[in-house]
Amino acid sequence: MPTKQKTLDDLFLETLKDMYHAEKQILRALPKMGKAADSDQLRQAFETHRKETEGQVARLEQVFEMLGKPARGKPCEAIQGIIEEGKEVMDDFKGSDALDAGLLAGAQAVEHYEISRYGTLKSWAMQLRMNDAAELLDQTLQEEKKTDQLLTQIAESSANQKAA
Amino acid sequence: MPTKQKTLDDLFLETLKDMYHAEKQILRALPKMGKAADSDQLRQAFETHRKETEGQVARLEQVFEMLGKPARGKPCEAIQGIIEEGKEVMDDFKGSDALDAGLLAGAQAVEHYEISRYGTLKSWAMQLRMNDAAELLDQTLQEEKKTDQLLTQIAESSANQKAA
Repeated sequence: MPTKQKTLDDLFLETLKDMYHAEKQILRALPKMGKAADSDQLRQAFETHRKETEGQVARLEQVFEMLGKPARGKPCEAIQGIIEEGKEVMDDFKGSDALDAGLLAGAQAVEHYEISRYGTLKSWAMQLRMNDAAELLDQTLQEEKKTDQLLTQIAESSANQKAA
Repeated sequence: MPTKQKTLDDLFLETLKDMYHAEKQILRALPKMGKAADSDQLRQAFETHRKETEGQVARLEQVFEMLGKPARGKPCEAIQGIIEEGKEVMDDFKGSDALDAGLLAGAQAVEHYEISRYGTLKSWAMQLRMNDAAELLDQTLQEEKKTDQLLTQIAESSANQKAA
């Protein structure tokens, strides 16, 4: 059966669905990470990022609406793998002084996955002349970068020193 | 059975094993991505990065040696998920003008995972006063950042335009 030639529009939509699923997984993981965290500063950072993530989900829904498509996720194996690894560290390092360092590393792997995906989505949106969508995706991209920097700061100032 | 309290040394070694497995997976994936790529520029970039990755594996082996531990990987679910997603795009977009854009996006997700992990490992090595290891890990970190920038350049200059 001959199928229609796929285009960047299709790739954009597929990746949007992937991120929609990823953000929902992250929304579920963050409270668990906050609960596990030793330091108040880290717990607070996870809580702040959880609220931010709710806004990021809402932005993705706006982009779906711009495309005239229902907001729907599709399983994102990448984020599942990253979160799974984070869970292992939580289990293996429970009660250890290195737990926060491990939580931070896991959270930064999540942030970098998102930075990569939102960077790509923004670039594709511009290519597709969807400037409003590009603007929304850029807002989230900047938030993810800021969160990653904050996590680096926390890691270098406290968790690593405590763990060593 | 009471176990020894885990420390940052343990976390460092676990994450090193994770990256050793990840790099080996990447070494296997890159030739397939190169074969699938439409543009000569992208194929060339994947080939160059494959050679670079061999050097990165060798650096990890040097760090294992510094720790007096055998170089051994442990399944890295994160990289498996990222590569799995890349494979899906390769299958779904085969023969499409958007294929290279999809390959680039997948490769950038890989790079960002590595940037996150090598950044973390370097920071932990410094914390653990392993300056030679930190130096090696930083060399790889800089290579990954450069590769990510090159991929962004290729994406913005050609693949995305072609796909749109």
